[in-house]
Amino acid sequence: MADFPAPGFTGSPLVRIDIERGNRGYFDQQVASLSARLLRLDGLTPQVTDDGRLSWGSLAEADPQAELALLGLIDGKPRFVSLARVDEDPAQRTTAMNTALTMLEPEEAATYAAARCLVDWHSRHGFCARCGRESRVFRSGWARLCDRDQGGCGIEHFPRTDPVVIMLAEFEDRVLVGRQHRWPQGRYSALAGFVEVGESIEEAVARELHEEAGIVVRDVRYVASQPWPFPSQLMIACIARAESNLINLDANELEHAQWASRDDVRAALAGSSDAPFLAPPPYAIAHTLLTAWLGEAGSDQPTMRSRPWG
Amino acid sequence: MADFPAPGFTGSPLVRIDIERGNRGYFDQQVASLSARLLRLDGLTPQVTDDGRLSWGSLAEADPQAELALLGLIDGKPRFVSLARVDEDPAQRTTAMNTALTMLEPEEAATYAAARCLVDWHSRHGFCARCGRESRVFRSGWARLCDRDQGGCGIEHFPRTDPVVIMLAEFEDRVLVGRQHRWPQGRYSALAGFVEVGESIEEAVARELHEEAGIVVRDVRYVASQPWPFPSQLMIACIARAESNLINLDANELEHAQWASRDDVRAALAGSSDAPFLAPPPYAIAHTLLTAWLGEAGSDQPTMRSRPWG
Repeated sequence: MADFPAPGFTGSPLVRIDIERGNRGYFDQQVASLSARLLRLDGLTPQVTDDGRLSWGSLAEADPQAELALLGLIDGKPRFVSLARVDEDPAQRTTAMNTALTMLEPEEAATYAAARCLVDWHSRHGFCARCGRESRVFRSGWARLCDRDQGGCGIEHFPRTDPVVIMLAEFEDRVLVGRQHRWPQGRYSALAGFVEVGESIEEAVARELHEEAGIVVRDVRYVASQPWPFPSQLMIACIARAESNLINLDANELEHAQWASRDDVRAALAGSSDAPFLAPPPYAIAHTLLTAWLGEAGSDQPTMRSRPWG
Repeated sequence: MADFPAPGFTGSPLVRIDIERGNRGYFDQQVASLSARLLRLDGLTPQVTDDGRLSWGSLAEADPQAELALLGLIDGKPRFVSLARVDEDPAQRTTAMNTALTMLEPEEAATYAAARCLVDWHSRHGFCARCGRESRVFRSGWARLCDRDQGGCGIEHFPRTDPVVIMLAEFEDRVLVGRQHRWPQGRYSALAGFVEVGESIEEAVARELHEEAGIVVRDVRYVASQPWPFPSQLMIACIARAESNLINLDANELEHAQWASRDDVRAALAGSSDAPFLAPPPYAIAHTLLTAWLGEAGSDQPTMRSRPWG
């Protein structure tokens, strides 16, 4: 159906045994299994082999003070990650992290994303937001419990996933790309923002494009999605038709924005030295989104857009 | 593009003035405005007028002990909701709540959804999940701050929005609908489940259909989305092609599931007395999803499905 490659951070071979997460006996059995494997992390950064794969050790390597999370099964083997507390800013990517991302195969990055999100979430959610008491690891590492037996309020907490829209506005066969101050020089990408309470994906796309670039859109169409573990977003990639190409930039959000032609996007994705901008990396869904738009082969060209439904 | 009505809980006329949320002066100015309006709630339940609209009063009606959240502007008037603490289970809908939902126009329900999510979120998140200290209302009611001045860790917390996939599996021009034990008698709907960390929308659709009904799918396609404020989901509606019609039910999740034909779905949506099941209510996106599938006019009929790409 789609003529673009699967987005980064997708395709994990992990089989999540959700149904057994609340079963302590199953968990203990997996811990005791001779085939149990532990994901090797340095803080939140994965160890990556030369052929772009994650590195797994035995459970003996785990910090004995830390709890384990059972990620699920890969190749029938139980896969764990240590929930040792990490004190890193999960939104920041170090050089080592960026290097790991360029090396990891997408399906390996996907497994890593699940593990990383759990480790980071537990590290930053040790207390019950409802009553302030310390909570504890629950459901094989996929939840926390504010335990009544410890004087807590009995509430369960689940890892957070924040939906984010990331989108191209399209006008006369060009798409809008923007850049933030802190990005590498020359880098432009799709605009993005968090979906807020009380709005749909389509409404969030329209609101963000209007707030950040003054663009009014209609006909939002969904393209693809990916998890983005910095710290824990669900990226939802869309394309929307702009009513006009007049840009009114919110300088707090964006340093600059520009309309890119198909040739511009093609050159950027190819990494050509004469490309008018530096494309986002292949593991980012903005890369997928630009690729998908090119693949649409001019569905939005002026001759088509003059049809009554345009 | 889409030939189905806009989903419930969408189309709010609310203009979110995100950019001013951190501006205390702007907030105070809106509070002082003679046109300021306060959303009337009984706990978490909206007061609804006879013509299906929300009820708004003056700020004088607000609990003087409670903080206010500035929702945004409607018709140029600042709109507030009181963040008085509510101790209700936000996932449960009372009879009064269900009555309100059948009466509210979709765009009014959308405004209500934003307000309700904020009130409920503040009520259940009075403490910092990172350090356990009490946090305070921040950013005009759209965040909480763990204040360093009060001995806190300085972290900001934002309202939570949990992405949920809701989907129809499709096989030989029939779609899979299921029911949970606690639903009204005869009610069937699309299957649904939370998107987990480290997975895409498409992967969550495939995982949930496999877990709950033993169905293996491919070619997941996005249809529509809506916010669902019980308590704070983003519902993402999809259709996926099933590889087979063999159902293997997870009895913990579902009481029963069945394949519905176009005639079945048409009768259910029309509320016919001879319909084989009771459809979800119009404000639920499952209703939109079933309507959208009918509107596809047999795109998935056997003659089409024998094409090479099928």
